[in-house]
Parts: sequence; structure tokens; C-alpha cells
Amino acid sequence: MTTNALRRLFLGRPLKSSEAEAEKMPMWKALPILSSDALSSVAYGTEQILLELATVGAFAFSFSLPVALAIILLIGTLILSYRQVIEAYPQGGGAYMVAKENLGMTWGRLAGVSLLIDYTLTVAVSISAGVLALTSAYPALAPDVVPIGIIFIWFMVWMNLRGTSESGSVFALPTYLFIFCMLSLVGKGLFDWITGASDINQAVTFPTAIPTGLTWFVLLKAFSSGCSAVTGIEAISNAVPHFRTPSAQNAKRTMVTLGLLLAVIFGGVTVVALAYNIQPDPTGTSTVLSMVAQTAFGRGGMYLLIQLSTMLILILAANTSFNGFPILSSIMAQDKNFPRMFSNRGDRLAFNYGIITLGLLSTGLIIIFQGQTDLLIPLYAIGVFLSFTLSQVGLVLKWYRERNHNWVKKLIINGFGALVTFVVVIIFSITKFTEGAWLVVILTPVLLYVITKISKHYENVAKQLKLDMDQPLVKKETVVIIPVAGIHQVVASTIAYAKTLTPNIAAFYVAFSEEEAKKMEEKWEQWDPGVRLVVFVSRYRTISRPLLEFIDRIDNHYDKNHVITVLLPQFITHKWWHKLLHNQSALRIRSLLLARKDVVVATVPFHLQD
Amino acid sequence: MTTNALRRLFLGRPLKSSEAEAEKMPMWKALPILSSDALSSVAYGTEQILLELATVGAFAFSFSLPVALAIILLIGTLILSYRQVIEAYPQGGGAYMVAKENLGMTWGRLAGVSLLIDYTLTVAVSISAGVLALTSAYPALAPDVVPIGIIFIWFMVWMNLRGTSESGSVFALPTYLFIFCMLSLVGKGLFDWITGASDINQAVTFPTAIPTGLTWFVLLKAFSSGCSAVTGIEAISNAVPHFRTPSAQNAKRTMVTLGLLLAVIFGGVTVVALAYNIQPDPTGTSTVLSMVAQTAFGRGGMYLLIQLSTMLILILAANTSFNGFPILSSIMAQDKNFPRMFSNRGDRLAFNYGIITLGLLSTGLIIIFQGQTDLLIPLYAIGVFLSFTLSQVGLVLKWYRERNHNWVKKLIINGFGALVTFVVVIIFSITKFTEGAWLVVILTPVLLYVITKISKHYENVAKQLKLDMDQPLVKKETVVIIPVAGIHQVVASTIAYAKTLTPNIAAFYVAFSEEEAKKMEEKWEQWDPGVRLVVFVSRYRTISRPLLEFIDRIDNHYDKNHVITVLLPQFITHKWWHKLLHNQSALRIRSLLLARKDVVVATVPFHLQD
Repeated sequence: MTTNALRRLFLGRPLKSSEAEAEKMPMWKALPILSSDALSSVAYGTEQILLELATVGAFAFSFSLPVALAIILLIGTLILSYRQVIEAYPQGGGAYMVAKENLGMTWGRLAGVSLLIDYTLTVAVSISAGVLALTSAYPALAPDVVPIGIIFIWFMVWMNLRGTSESGSVFALPTYLFIFCMLSLVGKGLFDWITGASDINQAVTFPTAIPTGLTWFVLLKAFSSGCSAVTGIEAISNAVPHFRTPSAQNAKRTMVTLGLLLAVIFGGVTVVALAYNIQPDPTGTSTVLSMVAQTAFGRGGMYLLIQLSTMLILILAANTSFNGFPILSSIMAQDKNFPRMFSNRGDRLAFNYGIITLGLLSTGLIIIFQGQTDLLIPLYAIGVFLSFTLSQVGLVLKWYRERNHNWVKKLIINGFGALVTFVVVIIFSITKFTEGAWLVVILTPVLLYVITKISKHYENVAKQLKLDMDQPLVKKETVVIIPVAGIHQVVASTIAYAKTLTPNIAAFYVAFSEEEAKKMEEKWEQWDPGVRLVVFVSRYRTISRPLLEFIDRIDNHYDKNHVITVLLPQFITHKWWHKLLHNQSALRIRSLLLARKDVVVATVPFHLQD
Repeated sequence: MTTNALRRLFLGRPLKSSEAEAEKMPMWKALPILSSDALSSVAYGTEQILLELATVGAFAFSFSLPVALAIILLIGTLILSYRQVIEAYPQGGGAYMVAKENLGMTWGRLAGVSLLIDYTLTVAVSISAGVLALTSAYPALAPDVVPIGIIFIWFMVWMNLRGTSESGSVFALPTYLFIFCMLSLVGKGLFDWITGASDINQAVTFPTAIPTGLTWFVLLKAFSSGCSAVTGIEAISNAVPHFRTPSAQNAKRTMVTLGLLLAVIFGGVTVVALAYNIQPDPTGTSTVLSMVAQTAFGRGGMYLLIQLSTMLILILAANTSFNGFPILSSIMAQDKNFPRMFSNRGDRLAFNYGIITLGLLSTGLIIIFQGQTDLLIPLYAIGVFLSFTLSQVGLVLKWYRERNHNWVKKLIINGFGALVTFVVVIIFSITKFTEGAWLVVILTPVLLYVITKISKHYENVAKQLKLDMDQPLVKKETVVIIPVAGIHQVVASTIAYAKTLTPNIAAFYVAFSEEEAKKMEEKWEQWDPGVRLVVFVSRYRTISRPLLEFIDRIDNHYDKNHVITVLLPQFITHKWWHKLLHNQSALRIRSLLLARKDVVVATVPFHLQD
């Protein structure tokens, strides 16, 4: 009762199923909500490229331009590919769905596992980067990144347990704020560059030859790091049904807008960082974006606004995983590819298991990696790109099978997308292997194995549960055992109840001496409740052992269609703390019986007044 | 099954009750086991006095002699008083028993609460001091005092869960080792002092007047601090029945031996510390005893042996609380003054609840006070001295009531003891109030209130359980509800079982649409298991609400002698991890039903093959 009131206070009133039919989103609202994950990557994308190049020396920084260009081309390819995903799966085709339908269940599971890993990493990376945006502005908070990150995560868990319906409009604001800030920043930077303001220390030139000291390996590594900026693009294609009609068309238009914004902001920040000659800080106390903003606007109101909006959009990006993970795990659970309870909706229609699991996993990552974005990035993006590849390959097969209008063009686009993203997976796995990618490379097949086992188990259970409806019910009989600790009201009311079930009842008493046994037998005879009393004398101080022994004896006495029912009284207390004062041994006996014996255990309540 | 094997591995095979009759102890074994708490106080007693005197200046150190003398006189008084406790309560009269019998239940509870608090503090203080003995010898371990202390505590929890029968002889050795080390140390120190060895910097003189700068308040504070050395004396009187016959006589002789040893070692260490001109280290990195030992023997084998034996006896002292706390709490639980489960013995005949509670509480103290003995000492000893006072007062009343042979002499001795210990309680509470004693001063009445409430509750329950054996049993009837999620083997076997109980059965199904409802009804009719199906259509995604509603309706339909029985199937899985994949909603419904409704909830097992 108290817990229920608490639930309501924190989570709000229960919602009806019909309330799940969320209002459809217009484009102006869909864009910010669905693209926060992708856009927020700008906060660390450029920095990751520069950090890689810095390992050979500052002379390599100008190579951030070709690397960024390659990534922008990658973004373009993906936008083209995903427009076709939207067309093919207007009901919202995540990689799991597309792979499952076109490549079979195993590949679907692989896509699902990759995405779940990446959702978890998205939360950890985005929250770490968001906290870093905060500590870049307020270095005094730097020692507390881990607790701050954990507070953010559980705030989001709480918000999402309340349900998503309220999220809408509030969540649109930070993204627009961030877009405004970034466009201002890029504009100011380009203006400074063109006018040759005093801060400009270096002419930005597009390198034409690779100098000695810089290897292709480093360039590919920088490219891999930058790919973290691409993650999140798929969000729009997953959410097509949430768009206002014509939803597919609106979704496609939103996707193109996102692609353009991402290209301009990501490319722009990279150019401006180079123009300002920003050196990445390997100790991770100040972000590149923070340094760019400080150089452009000084440490004033605009700088703080940029840091604030960066932090907010990163938290929003983490929040998209809190939408994605629970929904994907519930879909997988419905397909028996994930533990069943992940498909249960809570009172507020949210998938509580998925939300809390994601909260726990990402908290674990934040603690293990001490909230350091740099350490988390090498784990990130493999999953996303693997799922990109799988859904593109799935579409290639689909186009080939269906061979509809324009199929060759579509096949080429998705085939090219599949190839490119697959190459990225390979580059990423190799260049980042020793820095942490090995963990994901190992974890993915392990999880794939586990969910395959889970799926097998559920299938086996389904087989065992299958009922031949023509077969008559088995005729059974029951024997009721009532463990008693003396003669009092609880025993009387439990016996009265037992008599409604069957005449076949035995009360069971454990005495710790012959003397005690005799005394109890005499008292029982005197009372005479019409039920046989069985007394065991035990030299052990627990009643559970003799009870198990007694059950064994009855089991041997009857055939297998006899079911033994054990009635355990439970005190229902008036005040919550009284609960702690009772029922401890009944609880223990109950779990012991269920674990060891094939018996029905019934809890018979006895209400205490005070 | 697995947990049971684990239990056996860690805790050993279950023991018979008869094995509780521990072998009676000869004096040579009783002395070390029962006096470790008192003797180990030497490890911090002198230091605490010097630390208090140091607050006014090193010139005050010579006043450690009169303070120590006062404490030795106090010890003498207590030994005399407690010889009479042994005489009066040869069955082992703890302060709780003595106070309860002679002063009434309220005072008994007060004594009990005081002792429980002090047992907890004994563990925290002894473990902190034991770790300090270790880190004095190995300063490199100093940053890890908290984890080391926690490991010691849970090692003891483990040992005690295994049961005490094994403890005997092993536990005698460290005390003898410590006695040997301390006597050697005092001997060497006195020899150095008399022969005027080079280390002796100061003539030890007994001060005759109080110099300016030293106040009575400081002296009383030093005395209070030193009183920590007196705790543990009562242990022997609690354990009289464990002595070989004539037990009372042997116990009394052991008590006198303890008193003499304590006086010699405590007084000796104080004199020698003064002779060596030891300055207490307020940072707490090195103990006074460690410095004395180092001055006497140099940093060699003997020094390490002293530190080792100090550590061991302190751990042993903590262990006496692991005997005392569970036994006292079980006695109090039998008197309904403590939660009932504290009187349950585990498989190994140990009082598991008491042992684990003490482990948790003392771990909490170690963490809160960061394992610093100095901070814990001000909380310590109030409880012991309050219980001393209560048992002495109890005896005074007893002697007066009985007026047997020699009663006046006995009354005077215990009366004097009561007065002295009460004065110590007052001095302690005042001088140490701001340093932490306030916590105990507040906590004691709060706990007294709580256990009084517990006791009242159990009394009320006993009244409600009381049965008039002539009254016939109430005639009841039952209605069985089976929530079903579809038509399959589990439902079939649950229905077959339900039919053994009553013909009055309803299967209950929640549909989330009218369509679904109709489909289920048709399928049920086709199957026709001979049981009525009730279908509710719900707009909420949970089945618990409609179920509660259905129960309400049935409740209104029948009179109050109808008991509703809800059958919930539970999957019994073959592999442990399969358990996680099932039963989550059944568990939730079960706890909801028990919390909200007056129904019997029966768990019907269904065994899965794989």
C-alpha cells in the first residue's frame, strides 16, 4: 500500500493502453527529437580525430580536413541508403527487423545484439561527454564526473519510467538551441578565418601529400574515431510511424535535413578548430569544442550557452537510447530472443525492465571507465556499423528477390552502403582493437550465443506447454500438510480452511525431545480438531529437515497423481515494520519446499489487528 | 540445491542439538577465552589517557600514574562486586538477567540495550585497534585500514556462522602469547628504569599537586578514556556454566586472576610508557604500545611478536562480542524483547541473525569512523558501565530482599560497586558528551523505546493467537481462482489440481480487446475442461488490476466464511539461469495479492524438462 502510493508519487497514475497511441509528430518536432544522437556527436567527433592525429604531431592536424571530408561522404552514403530503408519499411524497420526478415533469425539476432551493445555505449559515451562539457566550463567539478554522470543516468531512468508521452516538446528545445549555437560558432569562426582575425595562427590548407611520420594506419584510425559522429542516423528510419502523414515522405525529408545539418556543423567545427589552431587536451579536462567556443566568443555568456546546450543535447542523445533499448529488447522478447519480462509494460506503459537494465549497464560502464569519453569511444560505433551493414545487405536481398520498379538502382545504392559500412567495421575493428574494440569483438558473439540459448529454451518450453485439447484432464488427488508450532488461532483457522479443500489432512509438529512430543500429542487429543497430528522428534534445531523427510514418506506412500499441498500461515500485519517481526521461517520453508519438492505451497493469511 | 552445497562447503555439516552441550572448560582454557576482551584493552587504554593529558601539554603526562591507579582501584572494586554476581547467578547472570529479575523488565531492557550497543562498539574498537597494531608495524598498509578491518569482521562472521564449538583451544593461544609479551615488555621496561638505561629520559614520579594548566576536567576526561580498559570484565560472570565443576568457584578464581593480570599489565605499561617518555601520536599512525615496544626491544623479532600478539588478542576480543551479542539477543528474543528470528538457531546451531546483524552494524561503524580508534572510544564504555550499575543495583535489592547470611557485607560491596560505576557513567557522559558520547546518550533511550514497542506488539499477537480449545472450528468454504494466460499444459495441470480441492473453480483471463476476449471464450468452450471461464477486457496492460477487481466482486458475492484461493503456476526450471527467464509476473501478482487481499495464494509447480 505504501509502496503503491510511492509508485504513484514518483511515476504518476497508471496509463491505459489506448494512451500509448502517441500523437503523431510534425517534422519540426521529429527533427530535434530524433536527431539529437547524431548531432550531439559533434561534441566529440572532431576532438577524436585530432587526438589520433596528435599522436604523430601537430603537423598532422591539417589532415583532419580530408578525414572529416571522408566522414561527410560516409554520411551522404548513409542518408541515401536509409532513405530506401524508410521506403521499404514504413512501419519502422530497425536493423533487427530488416535483417531478421531478409537474412534470417541468426543475422537478425546479430543485428539486435549489436544495437543493444551500442545503445548501452551511447548512454555511457553521451553522458561522459555531457559531463565533460560541464566540467570544461566548471573545472572544480572535474573530480566528481562519475557521480554526476550516474545522477544524470538515473534521472533519465526515472523520466522514462514515468513514460515517454510527456517527453515531446520539452525535448525539442535543447536540440534547436544546440543547432543555433553551433551555426553561430561555425559562422563566427569562418568570419574570423576569412577576415584574418588576430587569433588565426595558421592558414587552413587541404593537404595533398602524406608527410613522413604520418602513416595510413594513423589516418584510418583518425577516420575510425571520427565515425563516432555518424552514429544515431538510423534513429529516424526506426521511427517512421511516429511521423505525421505522409509519414514516409516526411521521414525522408527529415533525414536529408539531418544529413545537411550534420555535414555543415561537423565539417564547420573541424575547419574552425584548425583555423584557431586548437590543440586537443590529452588529459581530457577541456574539450576541443569548449576551446573553440572560448577562442571564438571569449569566456562570456555565449561560451556558457554553448557549453550548456552541448551538455543538454548530449543528455538528450543518451535519452534516445532510453527509447531505443527498451523498445528493441521488447520486440526481441516477443520473438523469444530475449528474456520474456522485457516485453512487459509497466503501469505507465513503459518497458520497465529494459529501462532499468540500460540504467544499470551504463552506470557500470561509467564506473569502470571512470567517465572518460576517450576510453569509451574505441568500443563505440562497431555495433552501429555492423547493424548498418546487416540492414543494407538485407535490403539488397530484398530488392533482388522482389525485382520491382527501379530495383537495380536501389540495389546499387544499398549495396554500396553495405560495402562502405562493412569496410568501416573492418577498419574500426583492426585500428581500435587493442584500445578496447576487442571487448566488443568478443562480447558480440558471446551475447549472440546467450540469446540463441534463451531462444532455444523458450522454444522447448513452448513445446512442453503444448496441449492436446482432446486429451481428458488427469485425475488427481491431494494430501494437505499443515506444519504447526503449537495450538493457537492461526492453527485453528488454517485447519478450518484446509477442511474446505480435502478430508485428507495431516498436521505436522517437530518436537526437540520425546517429552515435548508427548506433551503436544496429549494437548492435541484434548483439543481434537478432527485432524491427525504427526509428530517427529528431531535432534536438529530446524523444522525444515523433518518436514522434507515427512513429505518424502508421504510421496512414497501414494502414487504420482497425488499432489501434496503444504499450507504455510503468513501474518498480515497492520504496520509495515511489524512485517519484519514475523514470517521469517515461513518464508524460508516456502523457498526450500519449492526448490526441493514437487509440492504446492499455499500461503494462508492471518490478519493481525495491531 | 546448489546453494545448499555451498552452505555446507562454507559452513560445514548441520549439527545436532545435543552437540550444543559444549565441553566444559578447565580454568587454563577459560581464562584466555573469556578475558581477551578485558586484557586487549591494554592496547589502547594507556594511549587514551596520554592523548587526553597531551591536550594540556607533555608536563601533564606524569598524571597518567594517578589516573591509572584510579582505574586499577576501579578494577578491584568490580572484581569484588562481580565475584558476588557469580555467587548469586551460577547459571550465568548477564546484566540483562540480573536487572530483569530484580529491577523489572524495563530496567532489564535498558541493560540489554546498553550491552548490545557496547558489543557492537567492542567489535568496532577492537578491530580498529587491531588494524592499527598492524599498520604501526607496517605503515604501508595505513591507507587500507577500512577494508582490512572489514575483512577481519567478515572472517569472524564466517567463523561464528560455522559455530563456536571449534573455537576453544585455538583461541587460547593468542591470549597467552599476549600475556607473555606484555609481561616481558613490562619487565624489560622496569629493568631499564631501575638500571637507568640510556633511553630513560625522565624520572617517573607520582605527582602530588595539580600544576596550573591542568584542570580536574582534563583529569576526569583522561580517567574516562582509561575506563575503556575496564570493559570486558563481566564476560566471566556471564559464562559460569561453561566452567568445570565447581564452576562458581573456578569462575571466581579466574576472575581474580584476570583482575591481577589486568592491574599488572595496564599499570606496568603506563609506568613504562612514562619512563620511556613516550609521546602519543595524535595522527594515529603509530600506537603508544608500539612505541614502547620499539623502545624496549628495538625494531626486531620481539617487536613484531608484540604487534602480532596485540593484533590477535584484539581480534579475539572482537570475537567475544560475536559470542555475546547473538546469545544476548536470542535471550531477549525469547523474552519477546527483540525480533523473534534472533532466537532461531541455524544449521550449525549458531544464532545467524545475531551474528550477521553484528557484522553489518560494526562494518557500518568502521566505515563511518574510517577505522579510527580515537573517534570510537568516546562512544564506548557508557553502555558497559550502565549495565554494571544496573546489575549491581539489582544485586543490592536482591540481598536486601533475601537477607541471608552475610547480607550486609554483600550489600555494601555491591552498593559501593553500583555507586562507583554510576559515577563513572556520569563522568563519562559529561566529559565525552561533545566528542561522540551524545550519540549513545540519545541512541540508548531510542532503542529502549523501539524494543518496548516490539515487546508490546508480540504481546498483542500472543493475545490474538490465544485459542479457546472448547470452541468448535469455524465452518468455511472456498472458491478457487486460476488466472490463465492461454490454453496449455500448465493450465490443464493446474485445473486438474484445483479439481481435487473444490468444484467451485473459476478460470480468469484478461483480454486487451473485445476481439481477443471472444476468441479465447470460443477456444475455451471447444476445450471444455469443466471449469467456468471469466474474461475481463482491460484497457490497462497489466493483469493485476482486473484480477483484484474480480476478487472484489467474488468477495461481495459470498459471505465472510468464504475463502478465496488463487492458484499461481510456477515454473520449476532445470538449470538455475532458466529461473530468471520465468515467473516474474507470477511473483509480482503473488506479492500484490498478499499485500492487498484476504486470499490464500498457492504456488503450483510445473516442472520444465529443459
